[in-house]
Amino acid sequence: MDKERFEKQLKFILEIDKEKSVLRQTHLSGHGRRENDAEHAWHMCVMIYLLKEYANREIDIAKTMMMALIHDVVEIDAGDTYAYDTIGAVTQKEREEKAAERIFGLLPEEQKTELKNLFEEFEANETMEAKFAHAIDNFQPLLLNNSNGGSDWREHGVSKSQVLKRHSITHLGSEKLGEYSYRLIDENVKKGNIKEG
Amino acid sequence: MDKERFEKQLKFILEIDKEKSVLRQTHLSGHGRRENDAEHAWHMCVMIYLLKEYANREIDIAKTMMMALIHDVVEIDAGDTYAYDTIGAVTQKEREEKAAERIFGLLPEEQKTELKNLFEEFEANETMEAKFAHAIDNFQPLLLNNSNGGSDWREHGVSKSQVLKRHSITHLGSEKLGEYSYRLIDENVKKGNIKEG
Repeated sequence: MDKERFEKQLKFILEIDKEKSVLRQTHLSGHGRRENDAEHAWHMCVMIYLLKEYANREIDIAKTMMMALIHDVVEIDAGDTYAYDTIGAVTQKEREEKAAERIFGLLPEEQKTELKNLFEEFEANETMEAKFAHAIDNFQPLLLNNSNGGSDWREHGVSKSQVLKRHSITHLGSEKLGEYSYRLIDENVKKGNIKEG
Repeated sequence: MDKERFEKQLKFILEIDKEKSVLRQTHLSGHGRRENDAEHAWHMCVMIYLLKEYANREIDIAKTMMMALIHDVVEIDAGDTYAYDTIGAVTQKEREEKAAERIFGLLPEEQKTELKNLFEEFEANETMEAKFAHAIDNFQPLLLNNSNGGSDWREHGVSKSQVLKRHSITHLGSEKLGEYSYRLIDENVKKGNIKEG
């Protein structure tokens, strides 16, 4: 066993424990507390496995799962930027790139490269794996929020056009989940949980 | 899209959200709060991917990751049985089997069978995938607990023989992680974090 290599791996593993303390705006079902990034990634990963039949094309399942598992690691340094926070979005890319360099940089060189590439592939959203991971990244909080009567949208006064814009990319990964998302959004507009306009 | 099938999948996906509220005895690093099952499964999954080179034989990585992701789903009904709780252990198997039937039973028939088989394969601990998943299931809380100066062992007054017994199965999945675990345990006995005997 290469001791130096192993110690680098353990350092990264302990470092990402902090992801369990990065809170999102989404609340757990049953009007629970706010969800954290690690829980969100776990939930996404199970969903990717169970819903893979709805991907527009066949996906490499282990790769997509790993992409989901690590896509929010950068938020340990950069914080969670809420999907409808336009001010935070301006600096988000720069903050996250710096974080990726530091955090994945804890790993042995070739694992650093592998995970950083996977993170950048997710961000670029060009491969089928990245597109399906993004579809699930959107669909998971939509399900939770819908189960809570849309309380997250109401709390932030989010409008229909904002929600539709965010969920428009779901179609790139899954036409079927995209269609279903639009239906859920429409229902929530009708109920007044999402503002018209 | 088969609507009935999709609704079953969504029902399961929402049901397992409850796993985020099942607390374990392990505390997060930095003397944090208690960890929950979903966070633990997420952490395990990243570790399986990054440490797979230490498995005694090659493993099917997607299968092992999925096994880790769902191995604690039954605790939504059955609760977490602490590794050193000998009274709870008596009824654990029966409680967990009943829970597996109900929770995986929310899924479409063939996905129910697939996930239940995966859970039972984990429990039986005979395949390489199950053995490595168990190794990581033990190694993850060991790392957190060690980073916190062994506070979880001290809190429960756990003895060396109990800890060694639990971690003896790590070797079945990974000689290298097993060896390293024994070294960490020894250090914690010397420091008085684990009772002699």
